Amino acid sequence: MIIVLEEESRHLEEVLGGRFRKVRHGGKVAYVSVRQVPRETLDRLHNARIVDTGKPYQLASRSFVEDGTRVRIGEAEFGGKGIQVCAGPCAVESRAQLLEAAEAVKTAGASVLRGGAFKPRTSPYSFQGLGEEGLRILREVSDEVGIPVVTEATSPEQVPVVAEYADAIQIGARNMQNFELLKAAGRSGRPVLLKRGASATIEEWMLAAEYVLLEGNWSVILCERGIRSFDGATRNVFDVAGMALAKALTHLPVIADPSHATGRKDLVMPAAMAAVAAGADGLIVEVHPRPDEALSDGPQSLDPIGFRKMMSEVAKVANAIGRGLR
Amino acid sequence: MIIVLEEESRHLEEVLGGRFRKVRHGGKVAYVSVRQVPRETLDRLHNARIVDTGKPYQLASRSFVEDGTRVRIGEAEFGGKGIQVCAGPCAVESRAQLLEAAEAVKTAGASVLRGGAFKPRTSPYSFQGLGEEGLRILREVSDEVGIPVVTEATSPEQVPVVAEYADAIQIGARNMQNFELLKAAGRSGRPVLLKRGASATIEEWMLAAEYVLLEGNWSVILCERGIRSFDGATRNVFDVAGMALAKALTHLPVIADPSHATGRKDLVMPAAMAAVAAGADGLIVEVHPRPDEALSDGPQSLDPIGFRKMMSEVAKVANAIGRGLR
Amino acid sequence: MIIVLEEESRHLEEVLGGRFRKVRHGGKVAYVSVRQVPRETLDRLHNARIVDTGKPYQLASRSFVEDGTRVRIGEAEFGGKGIQVCAGPCAVESRAQLLEAAEAVKTAGASVLRGGAFKPRTSPYSFQGLGEEGLRILREVSDEVGIPVVTEATSPEQVPVVAEYADAIQIGARNMQNFELLKAAGRSGRPVLLKRGASATIEEWMLAAEYVLLEGNWSVILCERGIRSFDGATRNVFDVAGMALAKALTHLPVIADPSHATGRKDLVMPAAMAAVAAGADGLIVEVHPRPDEALSDGPQSLDPIGFRKMMSEVAKVANAIGRGLR
Amino acid sequence: MIIVLEEESRHLEEVLGGRFRKVRHGGKVAYVSVRQVPRETLDRLHNARIVDTGKPYQLASRSFVEDGTRVRIGEAEFGGKGIQVCAGPCAVESRAQLLEAAEAVKTAGASVLRGGAFKPRTSPYSFQGLGEEGLRILREVSDEVGIPVVTEATSPEQVPVVAEYADAIQIGARNMQNFELLKAAGRSGRPVLLKRGASATIEEWMLAAEYVLLEGNWSVILCERGIRSFDGATRNVFDVAGMALAKALTHLPVIADPSHATGRKDLVMPAAMAAVAAGADGLIVEVHPRPDEALSDGPQSLDPIGFRKMMSEVAKVANAIGRGLR
Repeated sequence: MIIVLEEESRHLEEVLGGRFRKVRHGGKVAYVSVRQVPRETLDRLHNARIVDTGKPYQLASRSFVEDGTRVRIGEAEFGGKGIQVCAGPCAVESRAQLLEAAEAVKTAGASVLRGGAFKPRTSPYSFQGLGEEGLRILREVSDEVGIPVVTEATSPEQVPVVAEYADAIQIGARNMQNFELLKAAGRSGRPVLLKRGASATIEEWMLAAEYVLLEGNWSVILCERGIRSFDGATRNVFDVAGMALAKALTHLPVIADPSHATGRKDLVMPAAMAAVAAGADGLIVEVHPRPDEALSDGPQSLDPIGFRKMMSEVAKVANAIGRGLR
Repeated sequence: MIIVLEEESRHLEEVLGGRFRKVRHGGKVAYVSVRQVPRETLDRLHNARIVDTGKPYQLASRSFVEDGTRVRIGEAEFGGKGIQVCAGPCAVESRAQLLEAAEAVKTAGASVLRGGAFKPRTSPYSFQGLGEEGLRILREVSDEVGIPVVTEATSPEQVPVVAEYADAIQIGARNMQNFELLKAAGRSGRPVLLKRGASATIEEWMLAAEYVLLEGNWSVILCERGIRSFDGATRNVFDVAGMALAKALTHLPVIADPSHATGRKDLVMPAAMAAVAAGADGLIVEVHPRPDEALSDGPQSLDPIGFRKMMSEVAKVANAIGRGLR
Repeated sequence: MIIVLEEESRHLEEVLGGRFRKVRHGGKVAYVSVRQVPRETLDRLHNARIVDTGKPYQLASRSFVEDGTRVRIGEAEFGGKGIQVCAGPCAVESRAQLLEAAEAVKTAGASVLRGGAFKPRTSPYSFQGLGEEGLRILREVSDEVGIPVVTEATSPEQVPVVAEYADAIQIGARNMQNFELLKAAGRSGRPVLLKRGASATIEEWMLAAEYVLLEGNWSVILCERGIRSFDGATRNVFDVAGMALAKALTHLPVIADPSHATGRKDLVMPAAMAAVAAGADGLIVEVHPRPDEALSDGPQSLDPIGFRKMMSEVAKVANAIGRGLR
Repeated sequence: MIIVLEEESRHLEEVLGGRFRKVRHGGKVAYVSVRQVPRETLDRLHNARIVDTGKPYQLASRSFVEDGTRVRIGEAEFGGKGIQVCAGPCAVESRAQLLEAAEAVKTAGASVLRGGAFKPRTSPYSFQGLGEEGLRILREVSDEVGIPVVTEATSPEQVPVVAEYADAIQIGARNMQNFELLKAAGRSGRPVLLKRGASATIEEWMLAAEYVLLEGNWSVILCERGIRSFDGATRNVFDVAGMALAKALTHLPVIADPSHATGRKDLVMPAAMAAVAAGADGLIVEVHPRPDEALSDGPQSLDPIGFRKMMSEVAKVANAIGRGLR
């Protein structure tokens, strides 16, 4: 249950007896109580808005912000009519590589640059990213090309430095339930792109977002990136209907990552088109100047030509449903 | 390996030593050998077309029929430019119910009527369908409304009677590896709508189709209907990228069932739009005149108004990608 | 709800209004009603035993037969104190092969011979079994060696012929929801070994057993054989705790198939030991005289030496928990 | 490939050209190279032991330490003949609760105390643990009762403080791929109990261990705790055969957590017995003085009487296979 007041209420806090969380939202104060608050207590509050979400998550529920939250990364607004596309290489490999990628994706219509500096890799022997050097390159290229940038933080300590260089912080699928990282991202002052865990339920995903929201950070974008299944034919299974369900459950923008969801460059375009048709507010796509030379995720990366083609087809679908790219 | 000849070759059969399957395709004879045939044997064949699919399945592979196979159910052609929509109730409950449903879906643009007479149900205490009486109703309503009908057979014995009444035979997800049923459907002379099993890999699905094709029945339509996952938020997970992959792997038409894939009426429309955007050749949708009174699958059934709305939105996507409904 | 009466009651049938199932059990009549029957109706019945299982399945529930049901295949009694082991090759390949296997497994302590004549295979190009010739060999070898035999039926038509030759009928994992086959097996007069489907929930498994029980066949043995997961390191995941849960939920004997559950001969022994430690009433194990030459499932088949070693280790566990082999 | 030398070799490092990892093991130096090293280079090394694991993980492979690694937590030795049992409450709730639990489990034969101070919880509204106060209680009770203690760290920052208070550091399932945490634990100087992620493959689990080993920390204990499946009948699926496979693949001790694996107190005992029968080196079990009052995981916690019963049954199995508890 959420109780929204014009200002803090000592009385309510006493009634709730310490068992509540308090957060600012739109100039008001939102008290979250997991237990039901007695009717008579609620009746005595002045100008209170009472929201009974009926869900384990509260602040993330659409019952709380029915008309949807819009989140900005630079000039790109997620959650509005336009569809935003983040694109770029899996990992920052060099300044030249990133610059080439950034120019290509911006030209093709992407509104946010992506690229990993801290790479969480299954094997310690795989390329781990350039670290802070990668962040510096991201910042420089972002400024030079004129496109905001999102990149991943993989531990609470990295959050401040990522927040310094990047316009938005990505929480990867493996870290969706890294709660200390979620809290740190919540306190960072930056928009957070929160990927769904590969075996996370929709509800667990919403609860992960709740960790960020409770820090008072309302700039959260959710990202469906495929779930783990029994069939290795695709890297993951793109849960397009789960994404549509998430859109119905939460007021936060929801985007899709067709690259990780499928793991195959030939399936990125159909998955991206499906995502937009089903209501995605945006896409995040891996694009590499030369996928065959990529240090990671080459098989699922589009080259600039493939990306332009994808953008063109996605635009057709976006226009057909009255949205359009951007 | 497939060897296509103008006519049967005793010589080749001797070389293959009994280890082959033979089937007619487009006036020619296709020999399927799972083992590699020596180059010199192949070189000695006249006018032979040699297809090396490199897959465990042979006849279902796109390498065999590169330009795609078209399958007709009545006037509806699957696998061409137009997108076909099958619609109707989960189960035939009465003549009146089916007639109302059939008229509604035809008016809204559906080209095939669906409805179950033999219902495979998890519980023996659930409604099991009207059986042959249901088939009679299907035939009558089909003729009266002027729309062809597809319905399920659940055992080899039922195939002849289903083939007598219906225009196409559906093999349900639970029976995807009911091999005796596949063979019987293959011999039925009717088009076969083969659903993917809820935990079947794409490859297993192709091999199930192979069982039908080997009986000389080339009218096979594949249907993705959701796979089983760890998250109960949706009944199944709609594997839209797996569907797109299937399209790339096989020459057979591939359609989607957004009703079973999601299990929720509010998700049928976005899933249907996603399916078409990702390349589906058609849809099969549960529509009931009054879903609240349905004897089965009410929660995932659209009412006629919802179906019309879905058709209108799906048409926008279909038109945008240059296909259109029908 | 189950209402057990000394004899049929026309009165009760009228009250239930056709919405019931009736089956003989231990000389009495059991009426199964999925809806609740009014208290006053129940009160008026003489000598009625009322069982409220609180589950979607009724006859399979342990609430119905609290002390457990014992099922005999030949001399082997499943569900008692002793642990029964079924063993033999995946497929009958020849009389010599089966005879060698049968003698080996009987000598090592197996009480039932297994071997497939009708093989449901994922690929139509894989060895499909010897069919009725395989059944004849099974019967002959069974009689010669003096060990009862269980073998699979894959369609309703096969049930009578399998019932003629074999001592028990196996329903394979792929056919767990082949309801026509379940009903045919229920009417066969033979004990039924019902494998859990690779992606079937425990409840769906119980409901599959219910289909057999409703035909009046109380000789049903359940078999956990591994479920499908995301990790290909083992062929399936052996759900040993699910097996223990099944034992708690149903009165029917429950056994384990460590061969299919793991798909690796080096894991058959530990999985078998785990099964017995967790309460399995028996095992079914693939044993081939020469696994390297097996036409199917060689990688998961033990050779006779490996089987004897497994039996010896399993016996230690069985003895430790006060049961023993047989 | 691992190259073990008596001492560091500048020559080898030059040949490997920076593409290697170096770690001390048993007084020697182990060079790990993911690429193959030319035969002639290897031939020129003196007294080198060359280990070709043929796996993506190197140091964790049994090929490297064939006779198995033993890991001590206090007096408890994991990986030897005796089976070690860790037990205690899910979360430290108070000094009194933990003391009562610690005495009960020690009396019943447990050799390590478990209890959470930092609790990673799906919902931010669930009890999050007592934090450092919980660690202090753990230390005090551990000293008072005379039993070493293992507890979880959920972020790199927590590792030093956990290492200060506890005898061993647990990495939970949600954090199995929290690589910064793995590295921090590797550098902590404490033994690490590494749980398998709920949807991690065996190979991913081994690679997670590799992250710890590469820091020079050889005291790693692996723990199977159930994997996520489609069936909600148990909280997870206890992958007992996967656990046995892990034992075969790695030299590290492998234990099982029947509490999380099943989520039901009635299944903890059979799962524990199965684990030991299949070769587990130990168990970790949730025990609470009064499970009904537990702040977390009550439904899967044994009470002291249930735990004693479990220990008695587990001991029978352990003795039967020649191991015994401790």
